[in-house]
Amino acid sequence: MAPPPSTAVPPLVGLLVRIVTLVCLLVSIVVLVTTSYTDTTGDEVSKLKFSDFYAYRYLLSASVVGLAYSFLQTALTVLLVTTGNRIGADSMLLFDFYADKVISYVVATGAAAGFGLSVDLKRLLNAVDTSELNTFLHKAEAAASLCLLAFVLTALSSIFSSLSLPKRVQ
Amino acid sequence: MAPPPSTAVPPLVGLLVRIVTLVCLLVSIVVLVTTSYTDTTGDEVSKLKFSDFYAYRYLLSASVVGLAYSFLQTALTVLLVTTGNRIGADSMLLFDFYADKVISYVVATGAAAGFGLSVDLKRLLNAVDTSELNTFLHKAEAAASLCLLAFVLTALSSIFSSLSLPKRVQ
Repeated sequence: MAPPPSTAVPPLVGLLVRIVTLVCLLVSIVVLVTTSYTDTTGDEVSKLKFSDFYAYRYLLSASVVGLAYSFLQTALTVLLVTTGNRIGADSMLLFDFYADKVISYVVATGAAAGFGLSVDLKRLLNAVDTSELNTFLHKAEAAASLCLLAFVLTALSSIFSSLSLPKRVQ
Repeated sequence: MAPPPSTAVPPLVGLLVRIVTLVCLLVSIVVLVTTSYTDTTGDEVSKLKFSDFYAYRYLLSASVVGLAYSFLQTALTVLLVTTGNRIGADSMLLFDFYADKVISYVVATGAAAGFGLSVDLKRLLNAVDTSELNTFLHKAEAAASLCLLAFVLTALSSIFSSLSLPKRVQ
């Protein structure tokens, strides 16, 4: 059996970071999809959902993509840790490098878009504020915060995979 | 004279990417700071500036940070290209790696926050729309688009500097 490719950090540390990322994104998604607000003050009952805003839809998409990728990487790292083997060796390190980079940007922009809308919307709606509408925006912000935490962890994973890049041919 | 550290891409390519990044961010900043809207429909004349929104303030901050960094890197790369020498050699490659990474995240989140607010604000304000208010939001979106383009270029620089990392001690 060929030796597994060496990585810049112990695989267990990488695994731990992936698992925490996964949990953060999962909770972020749950919080976001349960975010809704029912307005009963007027004659008609109107319901506001997170999906009524493009920024929150993007936040959800980014979280789902990040979650799927974290799940894949967790499975692969468990495989590496338990069997000491990993398919593809060096080419896999290059895949990790590019994929980690792209995913960290996706998660970062998801969190930023969520915050970009929530923070100003909260200020704009202060005039017509109700505590329930505030709860709606607070929940959306909580989802964005979790996504931000997940981004910090994906950025860490991206640093790890960059440092683990195979030796460059000079 | 010690030989300059080898990079994964020719320094001239790196320089070109830095210069285009610099131009994009500069134009983005100019477009954003000139974005204002004067409402003369009511009794009072009220002026809306980009700085009235936190998301646009963050977009400006991110662009300014990105611009300052691109300027520094352009100067250092010109030094490398003209003299073939660069202070610090390998440790400088490590600095480039971390700094490029951080700056690309800052610029990416700046663009995402700008878009996150603009896209939904445009839809929300459709009811009370005036063409001038639309121009305000379009200009802000143009600034965010330029910042997005700059982000793609900073991400490219970040890939270059990651691939140029000094050989890892195995």
